[in-house]
Amino acid sequence: MISVEEATRRVLATARPLPAETVPLLQALGRVLLAPLHADRDFPPFHRVAMDGIALAYAAVAAGQTTFPIAATQLAGMPPQPLTDAQMAVEIMTGAALPPGTDTVVRYEDLAFHEVNGRRVAALQVPPPAVGHNVHHQAADRAAGDLLLPAGVRLSPAEIAVAATIGAATLPVARPLRVAVVSTGDELVALTQTPLPHQIRRSNAYMVQAALQEIGAESEAFHFNDDQQALRQGLPPLLGSFDALVLSGGVSKGQADFLPSVLQELGVTQLFHEVAQRPGKPFWFGEKPGGAVVFALPGNPVSTFVNFYQYVRPWLRLCQQPQASLPEPTALLATDFTFAPRISYFLPVRLELAPYGHLLAHPRHTGGSGDLASLLHYDGFLRLPPDQDEFKAGDAFPLVRFREW
Amino acid sequence: MISVEEATRRVLATARPLPAETVPLLQALGRVLLAPLHADRDFPPFHRVAMDGIALAYAAVAAGQTTFPIAATQLAGMPPQPLTDAQMAVEIMTGAALPPGTDTVVRYEDLAFHEVNGRRVAALQVPPPAVGHNVHHQAADRAAGDLLLPAGVRLSPAEIAVAATIGAATLPVARPLRVAVVSTGDELVALTQTPLPHQIRRSNAYMVQAALQEIGAESEAFHFNDDQQALRQGLPPLLGSFDALVLSGGVSKGQADFLPSVLQELGVTQLFHEVAQRPGKPFWFGEKPGGAVVFALPGNPVSTFVNFYQYVRPWLRLCQQPQASLPEPTALLATDFTFAPRISYFLPVRLELAPYGHLLAHPRHTGGSGDLASLLHYDGFLRLPPDQDEFKAGDAFPLVRFREW
Repeated sequence: MISVEEATRRVLATARPLPAETVPLLQALGRVLLAPLHADRDFPPFHRVAMDGIALAYAAVAAGQTTFPIAATQLAGMPPQPLTDAQMAVEIMTGAALPPGTDTVVRYEDLAFHEVNGRRVAALQVPPPAVGHNVHHQAADRAAGDLLLPAGVRLSPAEIAVAATIGAATLPVARPLRVAVVSTGDELVALTQTPLPHQIRRSNAYMVQAALQEIGAESEAFHFNDDQQALRQGLPPLLGSFDALVLSGGVSKGQADFLPSVLQELGVTQLFHEVAQRPGKPFWFGEKPGGAVVFALPGNPVSTFVNFYQYVRPWLRLCQQPQASLPEPTALLATDFTFAPRISYFLPVRLELAPYGHLLAHPRHTGGSGDLASLLHYDGFLRLPPDQDEFKAGDAFPLVRFREW
Repeated sequence: MISVEEATRRVLATARPLPAETVPLLQALGRVLLAPLHADRDFPPFHRVAMDGIALAYAAVAAGQTTFPIAATQLAGMPPQPLTDAQMAVEIMTGAALPPGTDTVVRYEDLAFHEVNGRRVAALQVPPPAVGHNVHHQAADRAAGDLLLPAGVRLSPAEIAVAATIGAATLPVARPLRVAVVSTGDELVALTQTPLPHQIRRSNAYMVQAALQEIGAESEAFHFNDDQQALRQGLPPLLGSFDALVLSGGVSKGQADFLPSVLQELGVTQLFHEVAQRPGKPFWFGEKPGGAVVFALPGNPVSTFVNFYQYVRPWLRLCQQPQASLPEPTALLATDFTFAPRISYFLPVRLELAPYGHLLAHPRHTGGSGDLASLLHYDGFLRLPPDQDEFKAGDAFPLVRFREW
């Protein structure tokens, strides 16, 4: 039986990059850019006025001049109004292009205005400290042709805004992952059916589909009864047309647990079966050469959940963004905890934000791996390593988080 | 001029609850539930077998019996097979309903099987430690009628799965917020236009729309030139039909900055104008009685960004989930920093996950509030309080985060 670390390595080794598709700018939010973006012009594209006030020639200030008749007014968006008389000034607004003949802006807060012979005159109250004051100079941030965004970045609102600036109405991004979510089990009935006393409704498939949706993967749900023939017929089209299959149930020691053998029959190479962990030990993982990766998760709801967040989500994220090295979060155990078996234990925890910004993890009682409703009280699992029995309050452990605030 | 804290209080005081709409289960992901969900049956609904193995009567074990002929086999999903002879056992699979006449399950790992006179017989290798072992008892987690989810919770994959279990094919959730994103400014041209030398493309509106999309709000974008008449005609329909307007530009001291006066003419009550902060000071905030809340943000990209994440996003989240008290994250300043003016300073920072789970905030050089591209290097802002000049490495400050990993 392999360790969680080794299982994670084998899972991540099968990640494959996704092909590009071109989507409208706002649909690219949260997706991964697949081609670099360069500045089409300088940033800013002109000497940009950074405050409302007047634009003047600093040389006049340096020569001792303190009052400046207004030669023209220039709002943002107007073509620049050249200043031909260096003793005068252009009244000017934030966002305007600095007029030829001027080099410095004095903001309204540092000016007083009066009229002389019907002409508006600005008097300096606080003289500008240097040439170029309150001017955001052309190319100060980026020059035309500079790399703005390398391929491989995930597009957050800041990147979307930068792409808008250069006129990128569409962007080439990684296409969404396509995942088949497959539930198996004769005891499971559809959401809309009334179960018989010994039956239950399917819920794992909804959990997995919701979790896939959260990270931007597309999914379709399928159900098979515990019937080898149905699996032999139903699985091959899925193996050929999806990036991954996430199955739940049918991988343990039971008489109806023939998924591993059926999958191998269908040409899926087993990469491991069983991981030294609780819950979720019977996890089976394989890959169809040239086809889908197969996550066959144990069907107990908490086991499905643990394995989804420990293995499936990181695999999906690595496919989306092969260049990324995402930091693994940790949290501090809030109270002592004991777990003797020499396997990794996924301890359900409720998270608290401690005053200095770290996360405190409070263990909670759980009804075991079948207790779906208990998940409502948790935010994640602390992954306690196999080589310890005693886990002390204040120690940090890797956090597998499934709920954000 | 009011403080950031006072401005935040006044903004949040205008949050209003959202009406319900009913959506299919998977579309409810990330939304806020508006009616409580109760268990339709016990959780589990029957004494649920938790391991593959055999079900037997513990009394026989207690009486010293160690071998159990198999009377029947019961897979998950099959009606229970009553055990009439307490000296025998039912071979049984995880997820099955415990058969009448049995009370305990022994897993395969603790059994050896052999045949006696053509009948399969299980021999205990590790006797069960107690009655009820490996049985997840009916109602152990929840009883029929118990509250599963109160109104007001945000629906993550765990809640979606629990809702599926009780057959909730649709859920009543808060409808999405509807926000009009309004850009103003004669210098701004559309994404697909080639700007003249003194013009730039609209980008703030895309940033705001993307940030709205991230938290599940719907938005529509509008643009007005710096033309009072166009605003007087164009804004009233928006004030009547959206929950909020987010404007950028037109609120500073410039001659084209007539948004505050036009908004008041149109019946929007000013709740404040200008906040003691940098960047983003000229923020104007108001509410139309019976209509939209109006966030009129300064148009410099970084100012728009800071104010969106400090004020608009918390307001949206409070509307979505009035009961929530979300923890305010903090981060530790990584290096000393000095800022003398007696106003709140939003210091751009890149975040690093420190070994004990807290966040280290690295300040970065910025080109000022016009430097949109600089945002690409940040993950958020540390909000440095106005009553200090010197900010020491290792001190914790509130974090306004705009990028997740």
